[in-house]
Amino acid sequence: MTSLGDKGSVQTQTKVLSQGCWTQVSCPCCVSEQVEPLVYIKLSNNIEPVTKRWLISLIEASKRHGGAALLAHPGEDECGDVIVVSAPRCTLLKATEDLGLCKKYRNEEMVAFAYHDRDNFSNVDDMQEFLTLAERQYIVKIELDSLQAQKKQRIPGVPDAPGVLEAWENICQKLERLGVIKDIFPLHDQQRLNDLGRSWYSKKQIWRQPLDAIHSYFGGTVAFYFSFLDFYTWALVPPAFLGLVLTFLLPGGGGVVKEQAGEGVMEEDNDGPSVSGHMVQAVFSMLWSTLFIELWKRRSSSLSHRWGTLNLAERFSEPRPGFHGTLGFNPVTGRLEPLFPEWQRQLRVGLVSLPLVGLFLGLVVLGMTGFYHGEALVQGFHQDSGSLFSGALLYLPSMAHIVYTNMLGNVYHTVAMQLTEWENHREESSFQNQHTTKVLLFTFFNNFAVLFHIAFYKQDLPLLRKRLASLLIWNQLVNQFTEVVVPFIVDRFLSAPHKKEQEDNLEVDKLRAQRSLPPFPGLFAEYIELLLQFGYLSLFSCVYPLTAVLLLLNNITEIRGDGYKICKLFRKPFSAPVSNIGVWQTAFEVLGFASVMSNCWLLLLSPRVQEFCLEGGISGKNIILFAILVEHVLILVKMILAFMIPDEPDWVRIKREQIEFNSMQALGQQKL
Amino acid sequence: MTSLGDKGSVQTQTKVLSQGCWTQVSCPCCVSEQVEPLVYIKLSNNIEPVTKRWLISLIEASKRHGGAALLAHPGEDECGDVIVVSAPRCTLLKATEDLGLCKKYRNEEMVAFAYHDRDNFSNVDDMQEFLTLAERQYIVKIELDSLQAQKKQRIPGVPDAPGVLEAWENICQKLERLGVIKDIFPLHDQQRLNDLGRSWYSKKQIWRQPLDAIHSYFGGTVAFYFSFLDFYTWALVPPAFLGLVLTFLLPGGGGVVKEQAGEGVMEEDNDGPSVSGHMVQAVFSMLWSTLFIELWKRRSSSLSHRWGTLNLAERFSEPRPGFHGTLGFNPVTGRLEPLFPEWQRQLRVGLVSLPLVGLFLGLVVLGMTGFYHGEALVQGFHQDSGSLFSGALLYLPSMAHIVYTNMLGNVYHTVAMQLTEWENHREESSFQNQHTTKVLLFTFFNNFAVLFHIAFYKQDLPLLRKRLASLLIWNQLVNQFTEVVVPFIVDRFLSAPHKKEQEDNLEVDKLRAQRSLPPFPGLFAEYIELLLQFGYLSLFSCVYPLTAVLLLLNNITEIRGDGYKICKLFRKPFSAPVSNIGVWQTAFEVLGFASVMSNCWLLLLSPRVQEFCLEGGISGKNIILFAILVEHVLILVKMILAFMIPDEPDWVRIKREQIEFNSMQALGQQKL
Repeated sequence: MTSLGDKGSVQTQTKVLSQGCWTQVSCPCCVSEQVEPLVYIKLSNNIEPVTKRWLISLIEASKRHGGAALLAHPGEDECGDVIVVSAPRCTLLKATEDLGLCKKYRNEEMVAFAYHDRDNFSNVDDMQEFLTLAERQYIVKIELDSLQAQKKQRIPGVPDAPGVLEAWENICQKLERLGVIKDIFPLHDQQRLNDLGRSWYSKKQIWRQPLDAIHSYFGGTVAFYFSFLDFYTWALVPPAFLGLVLTFLLPGGGGVVKEQAGEGVMEEDNDGPSVSGHMVQAVFSMLWSTLFIELWKRRSSSLSHRWGTLNLAERFSEPRPGFHGTLGFNPVTGRLEPLFPEWQRQLRVGLVSLPLVGLFLGLVVLGMTGFYHGEALVQGFHQDSGSLFSGALLYLPSMAHIVYTNMLGNVYHTVAMQLTEWENHREESSFQNQHTTKVLLFTFFNNFAVLFHIAFYKQDLPLLRKRLASLLIWNQLVNQFTEVVVPFIVDRFLSAPHKKEQEDNLEVDKLRAQRSLPPFPGLFAEYIELLLQFGYLSLFSCVYPLTAVLLLLNNITEIRGDGYKICKLFRKPFSAPVSNIGVWQTAFEVLGFASVMSNCWLLLLSPRVQEFCLEGGISGKNIILFAILVEHVLILVKMILAFMIPDEPDWVRIKREQIEFNSMQALGQQKL
Repeated sequence: MTSLGDKGSVQTQTKVLSQGCWTQVSCPCCVSEQVEPLVYIKLSNNIEPVTKRWLISLIEASKRHGGAALLAHPGEDECGDVIVVSAPRCTLLKATEDLGLCKKYRNEEMVAFAYHDRDNFSNVDDMQEFLTLAERQYIVKIELDSLQAQKKQRIPGVPDAPGVLEAWENICQKLERLGVIKDIFPLHDQQRLNDLGRSWYSKKQIWRQPLDAIHSYFGGTVAFYFSFLDFYTWALVPPAFLGLVLTFLLPGGGGVVKEQAGEGVMEEDNDGPSVSGHMVQAVFSMLWSTLFIELWKRRSSSLSHRWGTLNLAERFSEPRPGFHGTLGFNPVTGRLEPLFPEWQRQLRVGLVSLPLVGLFLGLVVLGMTGFYHGEALVQGFHQDSGSLFSGALLYLPSMAHIVYTNMLGNVYHTVAMQLTEWENHREESSFQNQHTTKVLLFTFFNNFAVLFHIAFYKQDLPLLRKRLASLLIWNQLVNQFTEVVVPFIVDRFLSAPHKKEQEDNLEVDKLRAQRSLPPFPGLFAEYIELLLQFGYLSLFSCVYPLTAVLLLLNNITEIRGDGYKICKLFRKPFSAPVSNIGVWQTAFEVLGFASVMSNCWLLLLSPRVQEFCLEGGISGKNIILFAILVEHVLILVKMILAFMIPDEPDWVRIKREQIEFNSMQALGQQKL
């Protein structure tokens, strides 16, 4: 079906642009009747034709001559502010090898693609079949990103002073800084998009997402996000079931049946589940979080094999555009490129970034302390005076805190981005991981500081339960509203007339219209939402057992909502081929360990346990010591369990070892 | 110097055996005038000549005909009970490629050796230069180990019933089981051994060991042990210095100067260092253990590069002789060999080995509990009666405990070996690691159970200090005596006449005499000694700051003692090329983490801290909570530090990536 969709779509889209205006290729294997528009470059409105011609000639020029070896189309006329870019077969195939993508060999195995051996790979004659749309578009992006000035030169049509390119300066970055290039984004393929949408968020397929189609259309990072969301949602079923059982079937559990019943959530005098229920929940949560992460790793590696990213060669490809350093020969690949010593990066991370991040986390704590102090102060004042003015003052601390937190957050986001730039990572993925880690730590801290304060400092479990329930329900309502309802309304009612209007216009304008959509904001917000959820669930779930049920309900709608959003409401994002969800996996893993500590502590604080100890005549000191022992043992068990479950299924390991063995063999025979 | 030694030695040794009796080789590149005897096979005394001839023909036969492609020499005559084995150039070179050893390329870089490209490697015409003695001998061993029956057949000269080889049965294992082969061991080269000994444990070079020469003569595992011992000894200098300062310069430290002075060790009423000294020691110990392990990892990887083991291919070579399974084609290499599914092994480890090991550790605890109970019982009885009989009874519990511990130890060693065999590991290294882990856990537990009991259950710090001091001094005396003094006496006085006698005998008997030495017992005992030391130091050092000084003194003599031992007192061991110290590194790392917990706890228990709290009016509960917080923070710091320090120096990383890049390139170009 996908294959039909692919072929069909080319025919649809090729109507859009007159085929004659595409770059003429000389290479016989790259000649094709119909060129597929892949990427859209929006230029400045007042661009000089000479600049546009220069840029097109660069895009078309061969690699040897410092070009990108792509196909360019000047849009409706030579003076327009648009360049549409596509890629010829040779460029696509060579880039596939450089990326280290695995493709189907004639024996149906996934094999690292080799340009020299191309004829033995399946579908190698049909680029629409051989590479996914997302891969083709990503290849165009990296080829554009790799454009460098071969020598010091000036950009035609741009005033002298800013328009001089230094030798080896990155051209696209320079042009974006100069405002010559406004935007570069991949083009949607409406027919395939509609097909995808139908099988994704329509009512027909409620139990599974079309992951392969998502991967093929949106690419690696997006597909991995939805796979993870899918896996996580299914994984929520057991804790949700346990939560339901503990709440409704075993109220009060271990003999101490009090006011505990099914009424559930908002009761302040409700002491929560019984000791035994508490224990069951804590141990279950520990085991569940370990199993969840370990099984996800296995799932992730099998997806990576399926999507041919088991053997990515990012380390050996060209550095990311923002990377700078002294020009020299890369000691590994022998290529001429900027070099930057690893130890210097390590020092920057360790001696500057780490302390600065720590400082900001400290400021969060400071803000919270200030808030609590302020609140106590104002409340004291109000109790003393009782006037209307002092009543109004009651709102001051929380407002000040909100303003403070927002300002801090904004400053931090800038600092985090600049620090990561300054750390000067060579690979895009390590840049992303470092940046994500920084923002993630802060966001997490910001969200959980109050809960930790209530749980560990105030030690007020009923308040914690109340807070958690309201957070969960409130967050869910807000999220569902902003993520599902608002987009739906916007799409159906607000942009509908706009759409109709377009139908009559030229086909080129359809492409242009894609630019009117906002750019895709990235997956950070989506992942952090899942991580916070997971935090509520694993850190505090034994306080409020229905957490998992609420999250499960939330995620089922979340999947469709996110799918709808990415298909309809944003420009298509570039998406790199990846082999896992990167630093997010680590974040979930770390949270799993933190949850053991948190659960042990909450167990210790639980009034039922305290009561139990008083009755049994056990001293407070001994019960703490016992809790520490339990914590350490549980962490040990968790580590052993994580170590025992292999991170990849046997069959993936064998495939990976086959690739390694083959390249070892090849090395041995190479110089015969 | 090494090269001269190498060449000289061949000339010395070749006097031993008549060159004419060696296997005649047909391959022109393997012909050499003088064949170097590498490995000695001791056969049963009453072996039939037909069996010996059959075995020799197997050793000589080409791989294609199911032989080992080695050179054999029948010793003094055809009927003797000896076969001396050597290896021709082709076999050595092919095995070098199979092992994945890196050798010097003509551009002086270390490159994974490829047989087809052999002419571009340095010294490839001179096997004595190209491979180390240890590598040549190890290759002979693996070639002998790989001998398999091509079809069901009977062994000539052995009675029918036991003497039938099944198809694909391992021949050497079978012959050893039948008693036909008594021993297989590599031969010493007296001249090189003397040279090595002179530069190693003579007085001239006290500050550094000749690690390269050790590696070349004794091989990877031995060289890595001595490198680690060397590194560890140097690493002891800072804590020893700190210990001296804390003991002699800052007695009593933080204002509370009591009876604390330089008299040091055995004082029971000595409260140990002050609070601040205690704190310094604990934090220092945490940082030191992290830095020690991380820097060792870097040292280890640079040694691995130096010795060409950065790219070992054990996974892809043939399975170890003890491995069994259903015969099939290895999915990775395509070779016909026994197969055993990985998940089944994992299940065996997880569901059988792990619980059984846990059971034995439980039995150790049970024994200790029994001992303490018995002691209390007997003491009560003695106080009641006070008779001579009850006085004698006082010794009963500890004697019973010693007998119990010994028996348990013996049973456990058998169980551990059989469990590991049953787990059926494919690679020798993973077999060794699993077996070492099992024995290690037990030994460690056995040694530390009493100390942990005193520290954490009895909470009796003065007793702990006393026990630690006596353990350290006692262990040291016993070890030095058994490891250095006894060997020296044996070698100088007892075996001297025996040696003189030999001088008159035939040269062949010199080889035969090497068999009279006991086989080398392996490095387990040496490593576990270091690990226990490290345990005393990092787990309890803040109780007794002079630990590091004593250990430093011990290790300086240990290095020479161990060197003397391995050179003079044992048969030469086979030693595989390895790239690190394997599971021992993990053990040291785990101990580092345990030490954080232990130090926090000891700090909490220290009488000075308790006093300090009482004075400050801090409740016992709060101080415990504070200690937990400190523990968690320190562990976090340790983990961040371990993560920040790269495990290999930059230049090694680049070399490794070069190898990977080259093999990726080769794979791409292979099918041109």
